[in-house]
Parts: sequence; structure tokens; C-alpha cells
Amino acid sequence: MSGAEASTTRRHLPVAFALLLIAILVTGHGRASLGIAAASSQPERIPSGDPLPSWHDGPSKKAIVDFVARVTRAGGPDFVAPPARIATFDNDGTLWAEQPVYVQFAFALDRVKALAPQHPDWRNRAPFKAVLDGDMKALAASGEQGIVEVMAAAHAGNTTDEFATIVSEWIATARHPTRKTAYTDMVYQPMLEVLAYLRANGFKTYIVSGGGVEFMRPWTERVYGIPPEQVIGSRIKVRHELRNGQPVLLRLPEVDLVDDKAGKVVGIHQVIGRRPVAAFGNSDGDFEMLEWTTSGSGPRLGVIVHHTDADREWAYDRASHIGQLTRGLDEAPKRGWVVVVMKQEWRVIFRSDGK
Amino acid sequence: MSGAEASTTRRHLPVAFALLLIAILVTGHGRASLGIAAASSQPERIPSGDPLPSWHDGPSKKAIVDFVARVTRAGGPDFVAPPARIATFDNDGTLWAEQPVYVQFAFALDRVKALAPQHPDWRNRAPFKAVLDGDMKALAASGEQGIVEVMAAAHAGNTTDEFATIVSEWIATARHPTRKTAYTDMVYQPMLEVLAYLRANGFKTYIVSGGGVEFMRPWTERVYGIPPEQVIGSRIKVRHELRNGQPVLLRLPEVDLVDDKAGKVVGIHQVIGRRPVAAFGNSDGDFEMLEWTTSGSGPRLGVIVHHTDADREWAYDRASHIGQLTRGLDEAPKRGWVVVVMKQEWRVIFRSDGK
Repeated sequence: MSGAEASTTRRHLPVAFALLLIAILVTGHGRASLGIAAASSQPERIPSGDPLPSWHDGPSKKAIVDFVARVTRAGGPDFVAPPARIATFDNDGTLWAEQPVYVQFAFALDRVKALAPQHPDWRNRAPFKAVLDGDMKALAASGEQGIVEVMAAAHAGNTTDEFATIVSEWIATARHPTRKTAYTDMVYQPMLEVLAYLRANGFKTYIVSGGGVEFMRPWTERVYGIPPEQVIGSRIKVRHELRNGQPVLLRLPEVDLVDDKAGKVVGIHQVIGRRPVAAFGNSDGDFEMLEWTTSGSGPRLGVIVHHTDADREWAYDRASHIGQLTRGLDEAPKRGWVVVVMKQEWRVIFRSDGK
Repeated sequence: MSGAEASTTRRHLPVAFALLLIAILVTGHGRASLGIAAASSQPERIPSGDPLPSWHDGPSKKAIVDFVARVTRAGGPDFVAPPARIATFDNDGTLWAEQPVYVQFAFALDRVKALAPQHPDWRNRAPFKAVLDGDMKALAASGEQGIVEVMAAAHAGNTTDEFATIVSEWIATARHPTRKTAYTDMVYQPMLEVLAYLRANGFKTYIVSGGGVEFMRPWTERVYGIPPEQVIGSRIKVRHELRNGQPVLLRLPEVDLVDDKAGKVVGIHQVIGRRPVAAFGNSDGDFEMLEWTTSGSGPRLGVIVHHTDADREWAYDRASHIGQLTRGLDEAPKRGWVVVVMKQEWRVIFRSDGK
């Protein structure tokens, strides 16, 4: 990459995301430095006929079930016609685990390692040397420009079809650094039940994530039952080209949408074109999505998953560098949003726990 | 609008669209100058059990029915699983009429007239004076900048909710300049049948139009059975704001996507995230969409509606300033695309004809 190209890339790439990653790295939350307690694997008995068997009876389960009953009661005051039953879900920290680092960041590091043989100069060149050495402190020291170079190298320069294959192959084999399990087994069983429960009641379920849309689409249908066209995420620009007479879309190192905070509302508007009636998140990056959803007229449901279980998962909120949750906790009561206290309300955490 | 703002607006607004409109105007295709023959209103008998009763038995109907039979035959070599049954449709000229001018351009002119009382200076200021005087030659003479100013005034500056209401009210009352019928009655009955037929066979039907997505979404569900989230179109940028504590999306005079030609492939990728198996268009603006669709592996269907009926609709192709069709006609045979000869293959044209 020339100096001019690097400058252009830096200008366009998601600065907020890069800064977040730097914060993670410089505070020592590199993945080698983070431990996690062994997960409990004692699934409780599942009451038959219960649509949310992994949820303890409690305020959150009651709020979700009551909401669904109200909007589906034909002739009732809160009835919502099926086409308007749109529910949106954040991904990282809401549908699957986001600790110790976003899964997509782990992918980026692995991707740089996989590409290294084609780039012998990376062996002695920052920031790639830091990635290849597994030296997170040195990567952090390379600053925003370094992170951006890593993310660009990992995500751009191939076609959309090629990238989908790369993601599919990675997600099939990659393992969580401490749990040593597939990332797709670290999806939350209680949330899988909410997805299925809503769909059984005529809802269309969407992912609305700050993560890259093309990083999610290859596996969301299999893992969540959510097809590609119901996945909204951050995206980079693409360029239509012909290669040997065949059209391809080439992925460019330029950001097209940062689907986080107010960007989630923009993404929802662009892709769905109407306001959801229910939204689920876990961090302040989801605040505007919940606000947008619950400020519409008629019945609305806003839900925040609060990570409170340091034994079975992780406990984090206001001080966390990933999934920071401050304003959501402060304002949930007055806005009528449901806060799921994970430790008390979830019988099991991960899909893999129930196996 | 200040000079600097006008400059910014001009830089960002859809130049291709503006140039197209100029071409329409300068060549005298103003709506006052275009006539149309009265449509036949003698619907033929509909054979019972025929999913496409407004289609004569002919090569296009056979190709469509054969394709659907092949992809839905469980265990057959061309079976396509239901989630992958994605079909995309251009709107202007494919699902509804686009002559003598795009419906959205008629909307823009009416919108300027509706806004004029709030802008007394428009009475004597180009390009608005030309619109208010109904002087299409003068509007054309105002050039690209003039057209862009008209389109920006008509489309930006309000919230997405406000704009949806404006469109809904306009489409309910506006009438086609020569047929004097609602635009939503000038949708093609044979294509409504194709939409319903595909959906009955497990397809998800999408609109992929060069027109503005927010101009279509308020009425596509009612008219075509296509919900807002299955409408892809050109879009302008929006900005998230709070007004009296309530979130709104403000429509800005900056283009975000021109969903035409290769832009249709980009729009499909952004919103759907997988390749359609069938695509329907009518102009060279649809070429790349059909190419993208039919160059995937497995069974594929590409269809071009050829406007050949000067009596019942309009006849136009290579020389037309709207819906120009040259490359599509030239390459359809070798690419295996179906060309619908409207005059010979459609028993009726408009939905209103069958009433």
C-alpha cells in the first residue's frame, strides 16, 4: 500500500471501531491476557410446552411473553398485523459472546497470519509483525493507523464471493481462545429461543450489528435461522467489475456504513424501511436502536441483556471496553426497557451448555 | 440555498438521473407534448387454474412456467431450496408504466407546486418559475443544475416519516397526464400475476429500481404485495436527530446510492446479500442485474419486457430517452434471456384494464 493509499484508507475506515480496538489492546485486554471461568454444564430440566425453557420465570421472561401475547391477540387493542412484526437483534453480546475480543477481530488477526506467506515483508513491518508475533502490546503501539491497516488487509481486496468462502472456512474451524469451542457454539441458548418464539408468532427477525455484514451472512441462517437478507451490519464499499466476462463485486477499503449507535437506525431504515416493534441489545451501541423502536406508537418492546454472570460467562457493563453499558442502564427504567439480569434469569448461557 | 450549498448539492445529487431528465426535456418529451392512445378495455376470458391468465400461451409464458416447475421439483436436478428463491423486479417499465415521464418526476413537479406558497421567491426564480409555469422547455434550459435543484427541493429537507406521508397522499390523488387514471392502476396485470405465481411457489419477490426507495415503499405492499423491506432503490442520505426528545431521520440532499445499472448489483448485494435466481427488467438499466442473476450457477431466469404495443401502451426501445433498450435486445439470445413481446404475449396490459 503506498503512502497515498494508506492515507486514503485511514480517512475512510471506521475510526470509532479502530479506537475501540486500541482501547482494548492498550488496556491489556489482549486475548492471551484474559481468562474465563469454566462454564457450568448442568442444564436444568426444560418444562414441556414452555417456549422459553432456558429462561427462569422472572420479570424479563414475563415481559417478553406478555408482549407477544398482546401483539398477536386478534381484535385486541395492541394487535400488530403480521407484516409489521419486525424484531431486531444486536449480535455481539446479544446473540453470541463478545469477550475477550470481538470475534471479528480474532478473524482479522487470523486472516493476516493466513495472508502472511504472500507478503514476506510483513515479517519485519509494523503493524503486521506484531500480529505475526502475537504481540498485542506492539500492535496497540502501532496506533490507529496500524489497526486500520490490519483491518483493511483482512477485509478488503477480494470479491464478495471469495470473502464469503474465507469467512465460512474460518468460522468452521476457529476456536475461542479460552473456551476452546467453536464461536458458533457460544451463541446464547435463551436468545435462540426468543428468536424461534418470535418467528413462531409471525415475527420477522433481523440482526442489526456493528459487525461487518459480510462477516455474518455466511453463517447466520444455519446458526440463528436468520437468512442473509435479514442481516444488517457495517459494510465497506464494493465495486462492480467483469473478470473473464463474469461480474464480481470487489471489496474496497472504504467504509460505506458504520452500523452502530445512530448508524443502526440508518441501517434499519435503509434495509427494512419501517420501524421495528421490538429490539434487543446489550450495550450503549444499541441505545439509538432501542430508542427508535420504542418511540413508535402502539406496543413496543425494548430489551437489554445485562452481562452479570462472571462464573458462567463474563460480568461487565459501565467500565467495559467491549459492550459498554451505561446510558442504557441509567435510562431503561424510565423508558420501560426490560433489563435481562443474565445471572439470575438465564438457566443456561450457551447453546453448547445444553448439549 | 447558498452558492456553496448549491455547489455541494450539485456535486452529490444523481447526475445520471439529472442528465436523463434533461434528455427527456430537451427533446420535447414534456408531458404536455406526449399523447397516448386509449387503452383497450376488453379483457379476454381467463382460463381457470392458469396461474398467468393475462399471458397468451407463447414462448415467454412457457419459459417462466418451465423455470418455476424445474426449480420447485423436489429431488430434481434444478431444485432450488425455498430460502434461495429470490426474484428481483425493476419497477419503472417492468411493473408499471414509465411513459411519458417517470412517475417520480411528475411527483417532483407537483411537489414543487405544493411547496411554492412557502417560497414566494420561486415565482420569479429559475428553475422553479419554469415548473410553476408548466414550461418544460424553460426547465430544460435551466440545465443540470436546475433539474437538480428541483429534485432536491422535492425530495430532501423533511423527515422520513413526513416524506412517506407526502408520497402516500400524492399517489392516492395524482392522475396520469393522458390516461387520467391513478398511477397505481397503471401497473401491468401480467406482471402482478408473475409476482403472485412466484410467491405461491416459495419465492421472495423484490423490487430493484432506479427510482427512489422512499418514493416506492409507502405503496408497494398494497399494490404489488411487496413489503417495504423487499424494496431496493436509489436513496439519499439521512441524518439521525432528536426533535423534542423524539428521534427522526432527516432527508439530506446527498445521494447515497444510485440503484441503476451496476448500482443495482450493489443494491442487491447490500440489502439481500445473495444472488437472485430470477430477474425481470425492461431497459439497459437492468442489464447488470440480469447479468449478475443469470451468471450464477444452477437454473437462472432473466426476463426483459419489450414495449412493443403502441396502441395499448407505448412502443419504444433503442431510441427511447426513457427505458432505452439496446444492449439487452442485442445480447438476450446469446445469454438465454427471455424477451417478452408485450403486444403479442400480453392479453391485457394494465391492472385497470381487467376491472
